[in-house]
Amino acid sequence: MKLTIAVIPGDGIGPEVTAQAKKALDAVAEVYDHIFLYKEAQMGACAIEATGNPLPDKTIEICKKADAILFGAIGELKYDNDPSAKVWPEQGLFQLRKELGLFCNIRPVKAYEKLIKNSPLKREVIEGTDIVIYRELSGGIYFDTKELSEDGLSAFDVCSYTVDQISRVTHLAFKAAQKRKKKVTLVDKANVLETSRLWRKTVTEIAKEYANVKLDFMFVDNAALQIVLNPKQFDVILTENLFGDIISDEASVICGSIGLLASSSVGEKTAMFEPIHGTYPQAKGKDIANPLGSILSAAMLLEHFGLQEEADAIKRALEKSLTLGITTEDIKGKNQYSASTSKVGGFIADYI
Amino acid sequence: MKLTIAVIPGDGIGPEVTAQAKKALDAVAEVYDHIFLYKEAQMGACAIEATGNPLPDKTIEICKKADAILFGAIGELKYDNDPSAKVWPEQGLFQLRKELGLFCNIRPVKAYEKLIKNSPLKREVIEGTDIVIYRELSGGIYFDTKELSEDGLSAFDVCSYTVDQISRVTHLAFKAAQKRKKKVTLVDKANVLETSRLWRKTVTEIAKEYANVKLDFMFVDNAALQIVLNPKQFDVILTENLFGDIISDEASVICGSIGLLASSSVGEKTAMFEPIHGTYPQAKGKDIANPLGSILSAAMLLEHFGLQEEADAIKRALEKSLTLGITTEDIKGKNQYSASTSKVGGFIADYI
Ligand SMILES: CC(C)[C@H](C(=O)O)[C@@H](O)C(=O)O
Ligand SMILES: CC(C)[C@H](C(=O)O)[C@@H](O)C(=O)O
Repeated sequence: MKLTIAVIPGDGIGPEVTAQAKKALDAVAEVYDHIFLYKEAQMGACAIEATGNPLPDKTIEICKKADAILFGAIGELKYDNDPSAKVWPEQGLFQLRKELGLFCNIRPVKAYEKLIKNSPLKREVIEGTDIVIYRELSGGIYFDTKELSEDGLSAFDVCSYTVDQISRVTHLAFKAAQKRKKKVTLVDKANVLETSRLWRKTVTEIAKEYANVKLDFMFVDNAALQIVLNPKQFDVILTENLFGDIISDEASVICGSIGLLASSSVGEKTAMFEPIHGTYPQAKGKDIANPLGSILSAAMLLEHFGLQEEADAIKRALEKSLTLGITTEDIKGKNQYSASTSKVGGFIADYI
Repeated sequence: MKLTIAVIPGDGIGPEVTAQAKKALDAVAEVYDHIFLYKEAQMGACAIEATGNPLPDKTIEICKKADAILFGAIGELKYDNDPSAKVWPEQGLFQLRKELGLFCNIRPVKAYEKLIKNSPLKREVIEGTDIVIYRELSGGIYFDTKELSEDGLSAFDVCSYTVDQISRVTHLAFKAAQKRKKKVTLVDKANVLETSRLWRKTVTEIAKEYANVKLDFMFVDNAALQIVLNPKQFDVILTENLFGDIISDEASVICGSIGLLASSSVGEKTAMFEPIHGTYPQAKGKDIANPLGSILSAAMLLEHFGLQEEADAIKRALEKSLTLGITTEDIKGKNQYSASTSKVGGFIADYI
């Protein structure tokens, strides 16, 4: 297979971890006889520095022409703490999601046997957990009007949803549930929000088309509690944009390390793959960041194109690195040496 | 001291647990020679059934005349799953918060030695945790315009904040931090929301008046992760309405049981005290619900009026019940008998 992959390394540790994902893809290309062409593109703080724009037109063009996108992370502290900044890195990401019509973010959350000890949660609570979160990515409070009043004394953000937006992600979630434990939990705040009530109504209607899937409802405050109290009760979690952002980051504690989680963002025409972790500025340039999240997002990319065997080869290599203890500082066991980012990536590529 | 206390038992287990809090207050009144007058009032599903209105005018009147309000819980499943309902129980609660100008919800979160084993989190993660959450309660997405379009195909909710709204709760949080570990963490989503950027700006300004308090910022998605990964890093958490709702419910896992957490909601003129747990419909009328959250909210009420010794008497009695294992089903130890709601309440009142 021949694939053109847009690569957006981004800021902080993004470039370092993305480089390891490319190594893994190159190894797969060699062993399984594929051709992967990479097109690098800029987004985030580095793009602001270079062009003044967090999402240069050229990046949009490269992404639109590519078969898929591999993304690292973006963001930089100085923008977060400067409420008067006119542009900031994350704008690039929302705008790209919009330009590419990425409407659904999919985050699998599993308890890895080798990492259970790293979780703040007790073994018996998380063992056997297998959740996938479907987060709506094109609507909600991210994309509608937001305004600071002229006198600077008040501000507002509008959260809106249409039935169409809700429907398309809902169908994906139910289809996924059919292949899994046949349960969808809709997370909302229907006792407060009008948009949540529209979600309940729309999802309840659509659920009728999937008779073998059970639909549950849960308020987001309770969900934030339940996901750490008893994560095994969940199969597919379906939710709107902001709630999905919160719940899926929280759920990463189940896995034992946020450094290991990957996600895909899918649209009608293309899809983007990225680790869940952020730019981890303290580690930038030190060759100590955990590349496994990025490497797993490369595996998700391959799965997306039906290359299951290839994706499995990456996952096997990754599990091997965990078993042998060839891991970065953040997840290493007691009395174990840690390996550098590039060493972990190198091992995985070699093993493939 | 003579206090008039409005009592709103509410729905589900609300009446059962509130009855135990009253027992504790009565015991305090007897021992310490106070007069507590109770005025019962309706709110929630029971009020809808009786009057069609989740917050009858009479309830508002009683609350406004009272020195403080003791509240149980409200809500009923049938309204949650009926997106076409015209009124629902929770509306009563927001409206009451509005009528009484309750602008700040305060939730202490401590790891109770006796309950650490019940937490899904590991002992070493939570031991010694002592957080208090200051949640803004009068603004945000709860109180601004919310609308379903006429054709039913879209909906929106507006989230808005003014500098004044942000300021008053911020001052309370910083004052609290001065008496504690001198650290405030503002939880927001400033990389997406205009309201969050206004929060950062306003809080940063106000922080200058409290030179001995350190101010930190954290995005809500990261906060949802950090609060279970490393809760000891927090002292005072300050946040807007919806984020506070989510984060504080989540934080209850630290305590080992949501049944034990209480909160106060304060305004300029009055204050309301309530357990954090909901109506727990499965337990309604069975005399099995945990009354400790409600009893602790009575203790918070006493503290609010400077009756520290009296509040401590309640807390000592409560700790004693835990030590002796006179507890409800939900928190009992292995091989222990459980006691009924009224038995736990009775023990605590007697002990006082
Ligand atoms: C960087 C940030 C704006 C983004 C979001 O909130 O969507 C991130 O948290 C994510 O989840 O991808
Ligand atoms: C009942 C509900 C509307 C309420 C809220 O979201 O404020 C509750 O969750 C709370 O935290 O007091």
